[in-house]
This record gives sequence, structure tokens and C-alpha cells, in this order.
Amino acid sequence: MQTYSFFMPTKIIHGEKELLTQAQQLTRFGGKCLLVTGKNSARVSGALDDAIKALKSQGIKYEHFDRVESNPSLANVAAGGEVARQYEPDFILAIGGGSPLDAAKAIATLATNQISPEELYSNEFAHTPLPIIAIPTTAGTGSEVTPYSILTIPAAETKRSFSVPELFPKIAFLDRRYTERLPVSITRDTAVDALSHLVEGYLSRRAIGTSDIFAERGIRLWAQCITALREGEFSPEDRDRLLVASTLGGITISHTGTTFVHSLGYSLTYYHDIPHGRANGMLMGEYLRYTQEYAPQRVSNVLSWLGLADISEFAAIVKELSGSVVELTDQEIKAYAAKAMGSRNVGYSQGEVTEAVLQKVLRNS
Amino acid sequence: MQTYSFFMPTKIIHGEKELLTQAQQLTRFGGKCLLVTGKNSARVSGALDDAIKALKSQGIKYEHFDRVESNPSLANVAAGGEVARQYEPDFILAIGGGSPLDAAKAIATLATNQISPEELYSNEFAHTPLPIIAIPTTAGTGSEVTPYSILTIPAAETKRSFSVPELFPKIAFLDRRYTERLPVSITRDTAVDALSHLVEGYLSRRAIGTSDIFAERGIRLWAQCITALREGEFSPEDRDRLLVASTLGGITISHTGTTFVHSLGYSLTYYHDIPHGRANGMLMGEYLRYTQEYAPQRVSNVLSWLGLADISEFAAIVKELSGSVVELTDQEIKAYAAKAMGSRNVGYSQGEVTEAVLQKVLRNS
Repeated sequence: MQTYSFFMPTKIIHGEKELLTQAQQLTRFGGKCLLVTGKNSARVSGALDDAIKALKSQGIKYEHFDRVESNPSLANVAAGGEVARQYEPDFILAIGGGSPLDAAKAIATLATNQISPEELYSNEFAHTPLPIIAIPTTAGTGSEVTPYSILTIPAAETKRSFSVPELFPKIAFLDRRYTERLPVSITRDTAVDALSHLVEGYLSRRAIGTSDIFAERGIRLWAQCITALREGEFSPEDRDRLLVASTLGGITISHTGTTFVHSLGYSLTYYHDIPHGRANGMLMGEYLRYTQEYAPQRVSNVLSWLGLADISEFAAIVKELSGSVVELTDQEIKAYAAKAMGSRNVGYSQGEVTEAVLQKVLRNS
Repeated sequence: MQTYSFFMPTKIIHGEKELLTQAQQLTRFGGKCLLVTGKNSARVSGALDDAIKALKSQGIKYEHFDRVESNPSLANVAAGGEVARQYEPDFILAIGGGSPLDAAKAIATLATNQISPEELYSNEFAHTPLPIIAIPTTAGTGSEVTPYSILTIPAAETKRSFSVPELFPKIAFLDRRYTERLPVSITRDTAVDALSHLVEGYLSRRAIGTSDIFAERGIRLWAQCITALREGEFSPEDRDRLLVASTLGGITISHTGTTFVHSLGYSLTYYHDIPHGRANGMLMGEYLRYTQEYAPQRVSNVLSWLGLADISEFAAIVKELSGSVVELTDQEIKAYAAKAMGSRNVGYSQGEVTEAVLQKVLRNS
């Protein structure tokens, strides 16, 4: 019998224009809001306009921190934390892809705790972080339903996550309209990221009955978008499915964590500037080949839900969607494998992951 | 595209002896606890002993209100509310079947609000109810993961539910050991109740993508227990599956509500003293026949997940498990149908439910 433990307290509100229709929901968090976004996507997506309308309709005051970088660093979230401590908002409304949502979690924590950004990794805080409302504008991160915040640590030359249960956003508004202006390449990268969460979660050692439910449904929804992803043309239904699949991926990894794909992927992003989803995508074919030895039934379920014949077909599609290939030197392969071995997620992979295994995955990918 | 909105903030901790192993989780709710139980089941199940051990291990003081009746009345929960107001606990630990869990929600509300029990039905309270930890000792109600409290109103000669989102228990401990001493008849009645939540939720007009995920998994788990339910012999795995199926049923109806089966069932319980699950069971065959006209694919999915050929087989099994049959007079049929029409749940059924429809269901059942 599988385990059906569960914890995901975020209220998901899924549908068009719900941010406007249900603006009243915001009032229960207070009368003063800090908007946290990057420079562009919140504006371009239309979500920022809707958020400002929603806040104004309820007489909620706000200030706007729009300086979240992509792959936000500790210094970047420290700057946001400073703004929050000055303004003293009651809650944070975060709009964007993974970067603004993850940054918002750090800012929400720094707003109520006088600590250095390095101390976020203590994962223990004297004061509860500010409540967060999350509005994803990409369909990949799943950050709107996880307690994780993944930040870049320049001193350690990698990304690392911190989390406390209070960082689950209070509300996640899922509106596919905010993803409709995403360029094809970002749509693909983020879709591959969502798939990696679903697949890594389902193939994790920590997979349980409850996470499996979400992973299966998410993979099946994602499968319905394969043609659209390959052709680069997306109907509103495709956008909606990708968005939901990504959120289901977030619920999945909020129970299982990720696996060595993410651990290795961080180095590809850090050193070669490869977008997070694409980095994971490059590694996933080899990851499935490795995992098949230890969990053949699970790998076969993934392929069957995706409607794919075998791992080669899977690898080909993910490669096609992920695009560019990076050539790594032998030295780089050794360095990234060694670095990944230090990460907790490696232990959630099936079997016995050694540096040699990771080197092989990188070499073959 | 289906809707994937979601809200179920209860932390589910599933597994053997987790109440003891994770007793530390209780401390975050405070140092003073009111235990809420009925006279027997909490003791017989072994859950009360474990709860007291857990509380003592953390130095949490407690008092014990053990006077919850089956199908608790407004007067009964008012008495509990009085005890709570005197003792001023920080949280409530409720152990039992649906009756103690539902009573605990009312007591948690009355503890912080100086209102009459009738005013519970306002569904709006000045003060947040006390936090509730729920430990089910039956596998049927699902109350451990819903915000609903169903109470008997003698003046209205029926049961009615109230709810606010704050009544979702903070933690639900699912430990099948606490259900192992249940008599066969109660195991069957409560199992049929769980099935009715799963099936009514899946066939509800308000069914959404998220509730469907839980309903499907719950029905599939329940299906694995059909032989055990018929034979009246339960392995630990059967007990575990029934318990999880029942919780998944609770998550399902926390999104969909129930349908006219529950509305009609309340009269059978109130006037004929038929246990809640059995009352629903008696009606479910006819309910599926009625619903088939409006949602044939969904009815067919339910049958296929249960591994049953058709509605007749379904009706026969549920009847076999539900046992006794009650003979209703024509006058009773008319009265119960009329009473049920006043309930909100009727509107969540498929098609156009009229008094004539409900009379027909009662007559044929």
C-alpha cells in the first residue's frame, strides 16, 4: 500500500479573469501590498494591469518592486527585502515566471526577519514570512504551489533552494491568458521544465500515492500538447493544459522534491547560461535510461501516458523542444558531477547515484 | 478543458503510529488541548491511548469531553462548547467517526464565539474557530479533510451542515490500526458512505478536474476492497485502502459537495434510525440509474473503475453491503422528497431534479 500523506495549503483559483472577479479575496491579507515582478513579463502578459485593477478595486495601496532578475541572486532579493522593510506591506503579490515567484518568497521572508540573505538557508525564521499571492506568467516552474525558493549563490557558483511551509503562496491564480504572449522558445523551455517536475517526481524515491495522482494527471495533460509544442502553435486549450500541467508538477515536487536532473541542470544554467527548463531537458533522456534499470514499470508508465513508444522517442522529442546542445569538456563534466553530488536531490533518485553515474549522464546527454 | 481549482489545507499524515512519532507537530498549536470524543470508539480503537501518550510526551495539558452522541444534536455540541469556553484550550483533538469529528468543528466554533448553536448556520463568525486535529476511527466520513459539520436539528427534524474554510482540520492522522476493531457492520456502512462521497462527487454538476483526480483514485482503491467487504474479513491493507478511499472521498466532496442521495438519506437516518452510510447505500442504485441519462460516460467510468458490469451489479453489491431494507409509506415518500427539495445539495445533481424524481428514487429503492 502506498502512502497518501499530503500537504499543499495554497488555494488554487483556475480560470479566466478570476483575479478581477475574485479581487475581494485579496482584502483578507490587508490593505497594503508589495508587487514583486521582473522588468517585462508581468507587463507584457497583461497580468500586471489586472493586478493593479484588482488592488485598486479593493482600495488596497501598493508599491512595485520590478527589479527581479532572471535567476535572482542573493543580492537581488536582499534589495527587494530592503524595499519591503521600508514599505511594510501586509502581503506580497508576485507576478512572473519562476524568478519573480521565487524571489518573492525570499523577499517575504526578509521583510519580517532582519537577517542576511545567506541566512535564508537556515530554513528557520523567528517571524512568519509575509503572505504571498502568486500569479504565474509561464507554465513551467510550479512555484505558485511550492514552498521552495531557488536562488543563485554567486559565491558557491550554483543555485540552491530554501523553504519553510509558510512559503506556500496563500492563493495561486491560474489564468492561461497571461501565458499567451510567451514566445515559442520560452513556452517550450518552461514546458520541458514542467515535464521534468512531473517525471522526476513520479520517478523519485520519495514518490507516494498522493504525488502519483498529480504526476499522472499532469503528464497526461502535457501529452495532449506535444503536437502544439513541436509545431509552436498554441490554442487557448493548449495554453490552459500546459499551465495546469505545470501547477500539477509543482504539487508533485512539493511532496517529492526533484532528482539529480535538477542538481546537474543548475551547473548548465550557471556556467553556460542555458535556461533552466532546457538544461533539464538535455539530461532527461539519459535520466530515464538510468532510472529504467531500477524502476522499469514507472518509466514504462511515463512513456505510456505520454503516448510514446520508448525512451529514444522521448529523448528525441525533449531534445527537439530543448533546442541547443552544449559541448562540455571532460573537466567540466567532472566538476559538475562533483558539485551535484553535494545536493540533497541526488539522493531522491532511484538506485545508487555515484559521481561516475552523473558523469556518464552528462557525457551521453 | 476542465477546471483545476483546489483548496484543501489540511496536512494529511498517513501511516502507522505517526501520532506518536510526530507528536511534536501538536506543540505548534499550544499547550492546552480539549479532547473531543464519543463514549466508546476513541477508547476501543486505541486512538485515545495514543493521543494521551502524544499529548503527555509534549507536556500538553488536556481535558476530555467524551459526551458526543451519534448524530450529534445542536444541544449536544452546545454542551461541548460550554466545556470549551470554561477550559479555554488552544486547540481541539477530535477522535472518532463522523459524529465526534463534526461535533468538534461546532465546539471549536462555539469555543471562540458567544453564539447560540442555531447561529452556527450563519456560516460567518467574528472569531476564528480553534484549530482542530482530527483522527478518524472509521473509514467513511472523510470529515478529517472537509470544513463541513453536519448536525441534527430536532426542531427541523433533519440534519444540516455548516462550514467555514477555517474548519478544515489543521492535521489529519490516518492510521488504519484505529479502524481494525470496527465491527463488520460498521465497516460496511461507513465504506458505503465513503463510496457515496466518491461517486456523488464524481457525478456532481460541480465536479472539476481536481476533484475527479481524487474521486477516481478513491473509487479504484475502494474497488480493491469489494471482496473483503462482502466476506467481512479485512487484511491490514484492506483497512488502509478503505481509510484512504474515505479521505479521498472527503477531499472530493470538499470541492463538489454531495447530491440528492445525501439530502434524502438524512430523512432515513432521522426518522428510521438507519445509519448514514446505509441510508445512502439504499439510494445509490437508483441514483446511478437516474444520473445515467444525463452523464452516461461518467456513470460508465464509475462502473469500470469498480470492475462492475452494469448498474444492476452495482445496486446488488451496495444493497448486499447495506443490509436491511425499510418499507416506506406513500406519505413518508412524499414528505421526505419534499423535505429534500429544500436542501442545496439537490441542485448539485445532474439534470432537473423534481419532487417526482425524488419520490421515484425512494419508491424504487
